[in-house]
Amino acid sequence: MADAQPFSFEGLFSAHAPITTRGGNRNAKYDFAVAYPDPETLPLDGLLESLKVALDREGKNLAYYPVAEGLPSLRQFVAEKLERDRNMKVSVDDVILTSGSGEGIAMIIHALTDPGDVILTEEFVYLGTLRQMRLWGGDVRSVKCDDQGMIPESLEETIKQAQNEGKKVKYIYTIPTFQNPLGWTMSLERRKKALDIARSYGIPILEDDCYVDLRFEGEDVTSFRSMDDTGQVLYVGSFSKIVAPGMRLGYMVAPEEVRKRAMSFKGGGGVNQFAALAVEEYLRNHMYEHINEHNDALRVKRDAMLAALGENFGGAAKWVKPEGGLYVWVEFPEGTDLAKLQDQAFDEGVGYYNGSMFSPEGKGANCVRLCFGHPNAQTNYEGVAELARIFERHGVLQV
Amino acid sequence: MADAQPFSFEGLFSAHAPITTRGGNRNAKYDFAVAYPDPETLPLDGLLESLKVALDREGKNLAYYPVAEGLPSLRQFVAEKLERDRNMKVSVDDVILTSGSGEGIAMIIHALTDPGDVILTEEFVYLGTLRQMRLWGGDVRSVKCDDQGMIPESLEETIKQAQNEGKKVKYIYTIPTFQNPLGWTMSLERRKKALDIARSYGIPILEDDCYVDLRFEGEDVTSFRSMDDTGQVLYVGSFSKIVAPGMRLGYMVAPEEVRKRAMSFKGGGGVNQFAALAVEEYLRNHMYEHINEHNDALRVKRDAMLAALGENFGGAAKWVKPEGGLYVWVEFPEGTDLAKLQDQAFDEGVGYYNGSMFSPEGKGANCVRLCFGHPNAQTNYEGVAELARIFERHGVLQV
Repeated sequence: MADAQPFSFEGLFSAHAPITTRGGNRNAKYDFAVAYPDPETLPLDGLLESLKVALDREGKNLAYYPVAEGLPSLRQFVAEKLERDRNMKVSVDDVILTSGSGEGIAMIIHALTDPGDVILTEEFVYLGTLRQMRLWGGDVRSVKCDDQGMIPESLEETIKQAQNEGKKVKYIYTIPTFQNPLGWTMSLERRKKALDIARSYGIPILEDDCYVDLRFEGEDVTSFRSMDDTGQVLYVGSFSKIVAPGMRLGYMVAPEEVRKRAMSFKGGGGVNQFAALAVEEYLRNHMYEHINEHNDALRVKRDAMLAALGENFGGAAKWVKPEGGLYVWVEFPEGTDLAKLQDQAFDEGVGYYNGSMFSPEGKGANCVRLCFGHPNAQTNYEGVAELARIFERHGVLQV
Repeated sequence: MADAQPFSFEGLFSAHAPITTRGGNRNAKYDFAVAYPDPETLPLDGLLESLKVALDREGKNLAYYPVAEGLPSLRQFVAEKLERDRNMKVSVDDVILTSGSGEGIAMIIHALTDPGDVILTEEFVYLGTLRQMRLWGGDVRSVKCDDQGMIPESLEETIKQAQNEGKKVKYIYTIPTFQNPLGWTMSLERRKKALDIARSYGIPILEDDCYVDLRFEGEDVTSFRSMDDTGQVLYVGSFSKIVAPGMRLGYMVAPEEVRKRAMSFKGGGGVNQFAALAVEEYLRNHMYEHINEHNDALRVKRDAMLAALGENFGGAAKWVKPEGGLYVWVEFPEGTDLAKLQDQAFDEGVGYYNGSMFSPEGKGANCVRLCFGHPNAQTNYEGVAELARIFERHGVLQV
């Protein structure tokens, strides 16, 4: 029956089905490119023990298809956590579990974006979000930022610019705490101003709070969502950072009219029940203790990286000390081309992502995002020195 | 800061973001509606032990984001299984792990469907597939079937009818083995004829083989995919039926040009690594032994249901004895309205889905799909008798 002539799908693909731009995950010797949390404090034993307890109690339920919104008791846990930690009043019905916060972001973007829609983000923005916005044809525009977050005047100006072109801004996406890739946390004053502006123009905010639990020092800043009970703020969070990315568990909080549409784009049914049972049982008993242990490990790693940055790039670059999260954003002098060097540096042992990858406008080739979460402190320290040697070898920095 | 005026998303939703039609899962006393496998043979202990072994070996990898295609060693296992069990020659690169086969189906449908595209299915078709096809605006048309599967003359006629309207058939979706909801298995001769017709018109086939491991008796019929090495047949399968639906693990096999586009619609990253590690380790050591145990349990349940059908509906209805899977399709006399009775029957203790829910054209209110997999044999037996009493009470059957 076999037929040697290959079948061609030309003309059969949907007009809105682009070739995916996702690459594989490669790892350099010193890998500061991809955002992994600390592997040494992964709670493997705790998860296994918790899973055993949960399966003994309710394992038979694995024979059912999970409800599309996900394990109700874990959604209840999320609602309680958000009230306790983020001052949010939400009910279990407001919460949908997702395969990482990425799925929630994708579902919301899909529900809100038509080709040509203007979407606002911070000056540099998480790659996965940018990819999803572009997948649906979004016209993504950035708002200028400093180390306090979005600059209100730039936010309003960007909105007005779109209006002048006859376009409506569909939504504002922000990672206000330990921003990816910029590392800073938006101040309370800036959050209030951004919310006021969004209100006056009737624009919803999508708040991505996936790093908020990773605070090493300083004071929590309340969430956008806690300052709004009108339904204008959509919210996503994640267990990838405080349990493990491989667990693929996150959540969204949104009003019913948004949830009902976003759920149309949840492709694989309710989240993995096996993982959800383990995570719920584990976190109910160990969450804050584990977060503390994990953050202690991350703090040491951050400090090693900052020390190495000071020693190797002291006069040549600028960075802000992040109070938490996984990222240091390093800005080199205007004109430095770290986009061009990126593949070469990877081959020579140091992985980073240059700024232009995170910019809606493709700016920022003079900047790099360095993730300090996965390598150990010593490796962070050595890797930054190695990066300096690579820069020197290729003459990219004339200091 | 709180503002009492609710925010409205009116005018902000994408034109292609419908309100989801997914309902919650309710369970009747005798629940023949939703397709769950046997809960008593769930391998909970085996999964837990296997997870421990896998985490000891490679648990640290949970700190990484899984590659988008999913755990490579489980993809390798799938490739080997498909070669052994389904005569398919596929490499690890051809396989993508998905959150149940449902996600793979959704990704492929999304990649291939534009509004108005004609899609062909069997006379009655799995609800989740139908929902996905309609989400992207597919014009779903059914091909007449008998207990050997799609009738070739009807297939060709349906294709020609679309051509006469100036429309191209984008793809043919089939569940050839233990069809959902119809229960039969398409004969080899019918498969060959359907593939010949699809070839002569240049139409790809999406083969959903998610029940194939649930064979209680009779001989395997080879897969469409095994008869094609041109890339015309796309294939999905599932671990939901042989491990557990709550594990949310399935797979797709497709040529590169299709995979690259389908991957654009994988919203939550690679499948859950925690579940994938447990399932791989478990199945490498216990797959066939577990399948045999599970199928032995299902056979007894099927037989109890068939016995009760004979005793209660002997002269009044028709059904085919399925050689595997989870479904018996029961056809009552033309004019019987089991759509109208469905909610009432549920409230009175028996859940079923009537045929019109599975029909692209809304036909088949005189038919019901009964799932025999989840209740025990005694419950299946009693439940069918209870259904007969409900029919009698409401005068739906004049026998």
